Amino acid sequence: MTTIDKLKWRYATKKFDPNQILSEEKLEIIKQAFNLTATSFGLQTIRLLVIKDKKVREALVQHSFHQKQVLEASHLLAICVQKDISDKDIDQHFSNVKAIRATPDTILEPFREDLKQIMKTKTIEERQEWSKKQAYIALGNLMAVCAFEKVDSCPMEGFDPIAYDDVLDLHNKNLKSVLLLPVGYRAKDDMFADLKKVRKQLGQAIIEM
Amino acid sequence: MTTIDKLKWRYATKKFDPNQILSEEKLEIIKQAFNLTATSFGLQTIRLLVIKDKKVREALVQHSFHQKQVLEASHLLAICVQKDISDKDIDQHFSNVKAIRATPDTILEPFREDLKQIMKTKTIEERQEWSKKQAYIALGNLMAVCAFEKVDSCPMEGFDPIAYDDVLDLHNKNLKSVLLLPVGYRAKDDMFADLKKVRKQLGQAIIEM
Repeated sequence: MTTIDKLKWRYATKKFDPNQILSEEKLEIIKQAFNLTATSFGLQTIRLLVIKDKKVREALVQHSFHQKQVLEASHLLAICVQKDISDKDIDQHFSNVKAIRATPDTILEPFREDLKQIMKTKTIEERQEWSKKQAYIALGNLMAVCAFEKVDSCPMEGFDPIAYDDVLDLHNKNLKSVLLLPVGYRAKDDMFADLKKVRKQLGQAIIEM
Repeated sequence: MTTIDKLKWRYATKKFDPNQILSEEKLEIIKQAFNLTATSFGLQTIRLLVIKDKKVREALVQHSFHQKQVLEASHLLAICVQKDISDKDIDQHFSNVKAIRATPDTILEPFREDLKQIMKTKTIEERQEWSKKQAYIALGNLMAVCAFEKVDSCPMEGFDPIAYDDVLDLHNKNLKSVLLLPVGYRAKDDMFADLKKVRKQLGQAIIEM
């Protein structure tokens, strides 16, 4: 299959086969792919919840407009953002850069201070919005990676993030839920699997200069 | 190469080889992959500019913090959003669904009206922000696809979108620029190519439940 064939194979899976569970190998690929997502300034203010627990997911269905894929998929992925970004987060990131790349402080220091200033000019809501955009990059990355690995997925904005944060105790983890991606394998009778893809014509979506 | 090897091969390419141009085949894959990006409600309020013209790109360098990859890459991709989302856009989308899937009006009609109402509850700025998030999904998708196709890329938020919109005459196209992705092939002497990847440890980025 070509890259485009794989992307065409992907669709928002509404009915998963609850008996087909992702292998540890596939889960490892998903986790590593998430961690390899490019983020602005490399700050990684996003986290991935990998939720296997069926009782937790049963409690989440009612906060997901009763969409059963949250429960029936092999695993429920929830992409979250930090509630806020502090100087400490920025310091930790630059310590990490220094430890991994042995970059001299004289090079890192101006970037570190600039980034702190950039974050200070934003309100906490603006910092959250900034992080949320990174969550969407991760979603795009994970959907493509799942398609390449022949893993089905269903991107979801449609859920109650406040209720999710309560059920998943995200307040105490300094996190907020942003996006869901149930992952696993399509049920044989998912009627959405065979629907033709609806997209603009290429000439409507692309402008060449 | 495994999927993870390919994602590790990717890095934000700062110096492109200006003599290596993407083949028509690779460009076609990029364009189709963009058009296959999943978007909320399938509305596709995003567009991809594929900019080859060197004079246009020369004019853009000064509005990109003088980052030369905008000019030196094989092509400059700019992901844009519609300035606004109208009832007409929603009607066109549902006409498209009907034409491609032959879905009966009785099924489509409630969704169409709901979506119009959802968009009407937002301000124009909120509708733009909603579209911008879809642009970030496309960015995540395109970066992954480029990595799979061994095409180098450099995700960029750091540019002056107002100046870009002027230079590219996006006002008259009802568009706003959101993200850049120069694409092509890394220069042999790009010092960033061999730097180790800086990422959180997997246990810091992932929470299992």
